[in-house]
Amino acid sequence: MYISNLACVACGKKLLPGLNYNCPDCGGILTVEYHYERIDKDKLRRDLERPIESIWQYKALLPIENETNIVSLREGATPLLELGNLGEEYGFESVMVKDETRNPTGSFKDRPTCVGISKAIELGVETVTIASSGNAAAAVAGYSAKAGIKSFVFVPESTPLGKVCQALTYGARIIKVKGNYSNSFKLALEATKKYNWVNLTSTFLNPYTLEGDKTVAYELYYQLNGEVPDYVVVPIGAGPLLHGILKGYRELEALGFIRKTPAMVGVQAERCSPIVQAYESNSQTVKSSEIGSTIASGIADPLIGYEQDGTLTLKAICESKGIAVSVSEEEIADAVHELGSKEGLYAEPTGATCWAGYKKLLKENRITGDDSAVLMLTGHGLKQPLAGSAQDEEIPVVVPNLSALEEQIDL
Amino acid sequence: MYISNLACVACGKKLLPGLNYNCPDCGGILTVEYHYERIDKDKLRRDLERPIESIWQYKALLPIENETNIVSLREGATPLLELGNLGEEYGFESVMVKDETRNPTGSFKDRPTCVGISKAIELGVETVTIASSGNAAAAVAGYSAKAGIKSFVFVPESTPLGKVCQALTYGARIIKVKGNYSNSFKLALEATKKYNWVNLTSTFLNPYTLEGDKTVAYELYYQLNGEVPDYVVVPIGAGPLLHGILKGYRELEALGFIRKTPAMVGVQAERCSPIVQAYESNSQTVKSSEIGSTIASGIADPLIGYEQDGTLTLKAICESKGIAVSVSEEEIADAVHELGSKEGLYAEPTGATCWAGYKKLLKENRITGDDSAVLMLTGHGLKQPLAGSAQDEEIPVVVPNLSALEEQIDL
Repeated sequence: MYISNLACVACGKKLLPGLNYNCPDCGGILTVEYHYERIDKDKLRRDLERPIESIWQYKALLPIENETNIVSLREGATPLLELGNLGEEYGFESVMVKDETRNPTGSFKDRPTCVGISKAIELGVETVTIASSGNAAAAVAGYSAKAGIKSFVFVPESTPLGKVCQALTYGARIIKVKGNYSNSFKLALEATKKYNWVNLTSTFLNPYTLEGDKTVAYELYYQLNGEVPDYVVVPIGAGPLLHGILKGYRELEALGFIRKTPAMVGVQAERCSPIVQAYESNSQTVKSSEIGSTIASGIADPLIGYEQDGTLTLKAICESKGIAVSVSEEEIADAVHELGSKEGLYAEPTGATCWAGYKKLLKENRITGDDSAVLMLTGHGLKQPLAGSAQDEEIPVVVPNLSALEEQIDL
Repeated sequence: MYISNLACVACGKKLLPGLNYNCPDCGGILTVEYHYERIDKDKLRRDLERPIESIWQYKALLPIENETNIVSLREGATPLLELGNLGEEYGFESVMVKDETRNPTGSFKDRPTCVGISKAIELGVETVTIASSGNAAAAVAGYSAKAGIKSFVFVPESTPLGKVCQALTYGARIIKVKGNYSNSFKLALEATKKYNWVNLTSTFLNPYTLEGDKTVAYELYYQLNGEVPDYVVVPIGAGPLLHGILKGYRELEALGFIRKTPAMVGVQAERCSPIVQAYESNSQTVKSSEIGSTIASGIADPLIGYEQDGTLTLKAICESKGIAVSVSEEEIADAVHELGSKEGLYAEPTGATCWAGYKKLLKENRITGDDSAVLMLTGHGLKQPLAGSAQDEEIPVVVPNLSALEEQIDL
């Protein structure tokens, strides 16, 4: 309700809030600014301190001007669950998981997408697009269905249709594009420009979607009774979620609700870790990198063509006195199984990297068991199951009587 | 906190709340009773009228005596979403979906399982079991992991491991049993008796699990501001969810919070519809039936060996002046696609039967568009995707330029 303008993070140029992607002058990333001084702080405090219903509880700090444009499936309001069993095992006191699998389409992407689609409606646009076969595609398709608008999802020709079942059921038009992901990305972008669609590709491209990510900070304010965790641990590809959460905390600080912001930890898969590589070499700019095959497909982003996104995320990590860390394939798979078998949390590999990264930093004494932390479990295990046929041989088969059972199983 | 005893619904025998399944005298179904007169009604009213955090908000009416035994992943508190787009299309005013896909393991089964596991802990039992390869198995495995207890999941030998990936990741011990489902069911039951396990098979077997189902009624009380919907539409196999919701409403009525209860609608797949068959032939008892192949696998229950469960559900439907209705395979598949493409709701086929059944009754004028209804969307589409390879041929493939796109796609 209080949006004032878009601003380029590189050159500072200000724009009226319209259908903008990168800065028209320098190509930099655009961010949303608000008339913070006009916000009714007492009202905002009440909204921050009452039980969470959805991200729209914080609409004072979201970029929609008229609330009739809001398209909602009751996103956000996700549980914050203590890792009690793992805490006993590994010796930490206060580590919580923000369980983003509980969002409408099964991942945190519902936060940015919901805001992006609502803003598309507000701007009078009735077609949206994305180049993705993952969680963001499902979110865009789902919210488009609810909004009653068209969605075009561009995917590489090689994408197995099983990956886009969810988007298909939501009625998205899937288009396979010959060649690799970059071709899909570019074609979506060209179509966006020519047809005046709204592009919701989940990098830092669309400035409005980023505003959805920051609602995590507001929810944590309520769920932690105003306390700020020492660390927030986030799986990162380009990193809009990490950047968004920090933005949310910075707004709360600027508005006088909190006195510090958390250290932001970004986790990448070793096989695709351009941001971690820059962090470890003390570089201030991120270079795109070749993509290796990783089970953490949701963060396997080489950043080709939008390296500046990685640089902005690196800056957020460093300014917050955070850490960038990468984890191996084995560590990721172990994390999936530990979250499942010790805490009853079913994460897709990408989501489980938050635990893999935290555990690694704990083992290396870069974080201590006394530090409080919130781990972002970004996506549902049902999206990309790990267990399966490999274990088939280990499953016992018995005839239906107890003596056969006792022979085979250690009861 | 106010549990008094178990009571047999057939012969009325009362038992202290222990590790009981069927009535020791007559084999009838056991139900939980409370000291309703001792309940602090002002406190309960406050709990009923505040935003929902989890089902444990209603612990006064749940069968756990000591709350340290509660095992929770923040289950329940699921959204109630209006079917606005479908309402415009089909001409109804107030039909809402209770989106149970948002539970921790992705289905409503988390409600009964959470209560069942907590009661197992309270009874000092550290091993639980279930004969299932579906949503209930995932729920039992997930809550067992959180509780730190063992779970044994019995499945027919032919079960593809892909179906139990989720339970495997939660660390359940899967045991394949030669022969059909009845063999798995019987072996789980024998093991339960011999080893004093807690059996959580999701029929009417375990009296405590049923108490979890009833929390839907309490949540609806808050979400509908004390109004009672005319109809609650529930996919039913044996039907504990339908029975549980009615029990919850009856308790609210007995305690003076509401003045009527909803008509309960049970939906089955035509290919496996023993309860609907009894309803349509005006029989008061349900007979087990041969099971046909249906995509609604979660309610494909022939009731062999526990026909009395179906009879109890039929009784609940009739006493509430409700309806039992069956839907075809085509109607179920259509319902999945309509919920997805019109409302952004991703349901597994079983869950989508609530919409298929409602729509059928609306078309046949057995329910009118003025009647209010709540449809129970019981399980997540990610559990059993419908869209897929069949549509592969229809997906356009383009080279990465706009003219190719325009040639192939109606933009």
